[in-house]
Amino acid sequence: MPRLEILVGRIRSAISAFRERLGLERVVVINLMSSTPEPARSNLRDTTVGIQSMIDGNRKDLLSPSVCYAWAALSEGCPYINFTPNAGTDWRGVIELAERNRVPLFGDDGKTGETLVKTALAPMFAHRNLRVLSWEGVNLLGNADGKTLDNPRNREMKLRHKEGVLDNILGYRPHAGVTINYVPSLGDWKTAWDLIHFQGFLDVPMTMQFTWQGCDSVLAAPLVLDLIRLTDFAARQGEYGLMPHLAAFFKHPVGVEEMDFHRQFEMLRDYAERHLEAAGPGIQSADRD
Amino acid sequence: MPRLEILVGRIRSAISAFRERLGLERVVVINLMSSTPEPARSNLRDTTVGIQSMIDGNRKDLLSPSVCYAWAALSEGCPYINFTPNAGTDWRGVIELAERNRVPLFGDDGKTGETLVKTALAPMFAHRNLRVLSWEGVNLLGNADGKTLDNPRNREMKLRHKEGVLDNILGYRPHAGVTINYVPSLGDWKTAWDLIHFQGFLDVPMTMQFTWQGCDSVLAAPLVLDLIRLTDFAARQGEYGLMPHLAAFFKHPVGVEEMDFHRQFEMLRDYAERHLEAAGPGIQSADRD
Amino acid sequence: MPRLEILVGRIRSAISAFRERLGLERVVVINLMSSTPEPARSNLRDTTVGIQSMIDGNRKDLLSPSVCYAWAALSEGCPYINFTPNAGTDWRGVIELAERNRVPLFGDDGKTGETLVKTALAPMFAHRNLRVLSWEGVNLLGNADGKTLDNPRNREMKLRHKEGVLDNILGYRPHAGVTINYVPSLGDWKTAWDLIHFQGFLDVPMTMQFTWQGCDSVLAAPLVLDLIRLTDFAARQGEYGLMPHLAAFFKHPVGVEEMDFHRQFEMLRDYAERHLEAAGPGIQSADRD
Amino acid sequence: MPRLEILVGRIRSAISAFRERLGLERVVVINLMSSTPEPARSNLRDTTVGIQSMIDGNRKDLLSPSVCYAWAALSEGCPYINFTPNAGTDWRGVIELAERNRVPLFGDDGKTGETLVKTALAPMFAHRNLRVLSWEGVNLLGNADGKTLDNPRNREMKLRHKEGVLDNILGYRPHAGVTINYVPSLGDWKTAWDLIHFQGFLDVPMTMQFTWQGCDSVLAAPLVLDLIRLTDFAARQGEYGLMPHLAAFFKHPVGVEEMDFHRQFEMLRDYAERHLEAAGPGIQSADRD
Repeated sequence: MPRLEILVGRIRSAISAFRERLGLERVVVINLMSSTPEPARSNLRDTTVGIQSMIDGNRKDLLSPSVCYAWAALSEGCPYINFTPNAGTDWRGVIELAERNRVPLFGDDGKTGETLVKTALAPMFAHRNLRVLSWEGVNLLGNADGKTLDNPRNREMKLRHKEGVLDNILGYRPHAGVTINYVPSLGDWKTAWDLIHFQGFLDVPMTMQFTWQGCDSVLAAPLVLDLIRLTDFAARQGEYGLMPHLAAFFKHPVGVEEMDFHRQFEMLRDYAERHLEAAGPGIQSADRD
Repeated sequence: MPRLEILVGRIRSAISAFRERLGLERVVVINLMSSTPEPARSNLRDTTVGIQSMIDGNRKDLLSPSVCYAWAALSEGCPYINFTPNAGTDWRGVIELAERNRVPLFGDDGKTGETLVKTALAPMFAHRNLRVLSWEGVNLLGNADGKTLDNPRNREMKLRHKEGVLDNILGYRPHAGVTINYVPSLGDWKTAWDLIHFQGFLDVPMTMQFTWQGCDSVLAAPLVLDLIRLTDFAARQGEYGLMPHLAAFFKHPVGVEEMDFHRQFEMLRDYAERHLEAAGPGIQSADRD
Repeated sequence: MPRLEILVGRIRSAISAFRERLGLERVVVINLMSSTPEPARSNLRDTTVGIQSMIDGNRKDLLSPSVCYAWAALSEGCPYINFTPNAGTDWRGVIELAERNRVPLFGDDGKTGETLVKTALAPMFAHRNLRVLSWEGVNLLGNADGKTLDNPRNREMKLRHKEGVLDNILGYRPHAGVTINYVPSLGDWKTAWDLIHFQGFLDVPMTMQFTWQGCDSVLAAPLVLDLIRLTDFAARQGEYGLMPHLAAFFKHPVGVEEMDFHRQFEMLRDYAERHLEAAGPGIQSADRD
Repeated sequence: MPRLEILVGRIRSAISAFRERLGLERVVVINLMSSTPEPARSNLRDTTVGIQSMIDGNRKDLLSPSVCYAWAALSEGCPYINFTPNAGTDWRGVIELAERNRVPLFGDDGKTGETLVKTALAPMFAHRNLRVLSWEGVNLLGNADGKTLDNPRNREMKLRHKEGVLDNILGYRPHAGVTINYVPSLGDWKTAWDLIHFQGFLDVPMTMQFTWQGCDSVLAAPLVLDLIRLTDFAARQGEYGLMPHLAAFFKHPVGVEEMDFHRQFEMLRDYAERHLEAAGPGIQSADRD
């Protein structure tokens, strides 16, 4: 890897060359790289000045490639979406840069499979007052992502995102393990098995289990397309900084407390309705142009 | 079975004797009987006069026991809840009687297991634009309810309630089969297996399956208690007729279009918030008395 | 359908024309038709004379098409295998014809999926003295076979074959239900779910469940090829009549009591070893010619 | 822990005191302790002299408690069974001692749940020529055994035993992962989920999965009782050294190549038949005394 200063410069050049070559009005940058280890914590994250000093000082211990991509995109005035379990989107200095450059920013970590089901199903246990004793999830996958996650250092952030969702929805912390195993023969067909051990009336223990067999790329691709469209729309409206109405797309929606998938989706619906009202009757035909 | 006129009279006497013996201000009647065949359709259902004429005429072909129970309860001025897949709660004449006597009424068919999961999970497929091709559900149970449902005529209404929920949530009608098999050794431990065959981006087929192992009575009992409390609360507020805010409790909430469990729960939350606001700061301590 | 006499004649002509056109020494006929209703029982099944009289008398109430195919094949001196849940292979008159014409004969109903697993797994419960209380199996499939089996009359024999295997292996009759549902979107991907409810030491109830997702044709095709090869081999050895050493291939192996898949496979291994010994050291190279 | 010499002495005293107090003719010692880390390898294992020198030299780096128990039991002339994933039973020096003292010896690691199913099911894939690509097993348990296995060093031997069975049965080494997670709320109810990814004709990939919900102690207890009875029987017959006919009881049957559960069971059946024949017609009534 070159010096960080040079890396950021190269990414910026690549973005602006892409924009010019295709004659684009706006480029939305979306991060799809595999998971990398989280860099060491530092207060320098909290300001734009601090992050710039880490780049200038080539502090590879404190910065990961994903932060450089975010920095380059935002510096170029491009909206930035982090679809992966990589650092940067929730750093105060990065958010500050987005706000200063008046561009939208959001992430992290696309919610495509097991965590999607978990955040859609956990509210049911909460609403019925069925106490979750343990929620144990196993993820088997065989693609390059799976190979990367086979390295324990690479999967730290992903596990944190996957495990964090339950406490918020349930209001307490059940035993919640997440296992990720690399099974090459499965390729892109991610297979997840979850066991939910819960307790009902009179403390009677019961169980639910589910198996999810989904094609990872096929689940991710339409979300990526929709995120680009929605981010472009937000930029056109002059919106900038974090986009909490996109929480439903992510395992770890930056700055959003709500983890219940259905309530997250209501946030998106409310956003859409607000814009439809503001635009008046012309929006629908305008949108189709 | 005695003449219907006599049956209704006896139920009324039993209710009023119960009320007097325990010195109760209000009796909430909740129907927990096993499923029975649906009576033949007739326009007489649409008015109180029509229903009374069926009772007087001893029309056992047109009335089921559950209607007699509803009729007796409402005539006695008692709120009535139908927790089972039995006829009556959605008959216009029955609703008319509840409104005339100014008592609350609601049902049908407690949502305790497979259908609960179905209505909690189906919105996820809708929100992610994952097209459900087939949703096949299998219910195994071994209690008296299971034995009753082993008779095809008894399970008609239950199957209709279970199958009807998906169309409303998804906006289209997938292939949706529901099988109910009597497996005596399972007793009260209802075991349901559902296979969801769905299609993603580029029409790639994927699958999800779940197994639910729940103790039927333990799942139903707290709902029954909560329904009695909430119905009593409604009656105390002077509310009467259908109670759509209780939709989340039922497979077939009479008069409610919404089948999405999470949106149904929001209806209950909105109701609670409206009453908290109306009551002012004193409600919480009052409620604890 | 033409008169049975004419039908049998046409099948015989088709077989002999096929043999002549390709200049074949031997034609093995294997039945792969969909399931049909079982014809009414009659003592005429028990002798060649009786069956011939049913054909001559055009007794379509007593004969199904599959019997005509078997009859035509055996009459032409062709070995006959019934890979389907159709009648005929276990009729005494049919077996008599095979023996008289000195050709091999076997069936019924290829063991490719759920029943294969059932007969491989049930011995484990027997050997460990774990008492099976209920073994409930659900089969979902969407191909033409599934459509045919959607008709209750067509699935009678199949259900009998599927349900019959447990008693023999376990030595007692547990509650054993088999459900077959037609789910068009699954196409050839047969999905079976089985719940095994069993009892251990001190009568503690436990459960095992499995889901089998197999491609029906891909599972059947290699068995069909192997059966043709093994039947041809048997004919070359001068063997005729029933071939019990092929029991492992079938749900309902005619004339074989043993339903334990592993013991059935030992029967095939023993057969192979007997022939290897009899043939002496030359067999292997000879076989490759 | 005291010096090993003293430990072995105390165990011997405890055994002989137990025998005397109850006036027993024979004591069968069966090891049921939790899993411990495997001691470092050494050639001293290969002879009785070597093992005695490790005990005398207090070599706690080379010996685990389980070896001391085996040594004490065999030195006291007691048959010894190792029902756990602990070292010793397959050490040549230990086997030598059993043979010299003419007492039966066997192990290791009772086959009660997931591995039982694995060795009962894997032969089906082999016999049908369905190539197993991956066999991924997940074990969740919450008892003291689960807590002990939560320590990676303690689960090494157990994992090796669980993973080793497939190669022998299939004749090749598929991808075979085994995960053991401690889930306290499950207590003694071990829940295992296995995903089998396999390939059929024309390399079409298919899957099978199973969930096993068994009560660990209830599954183990009758095996322990039967092992004591069978070991006592062997000793009464004058048999000594390893008892390969008991292979079906163990994940890692010492000195036995065969891992197919059904073939292991045939070994037990053959043993029983040999003894029935040898004993003549009187055995059955004799056995009941």
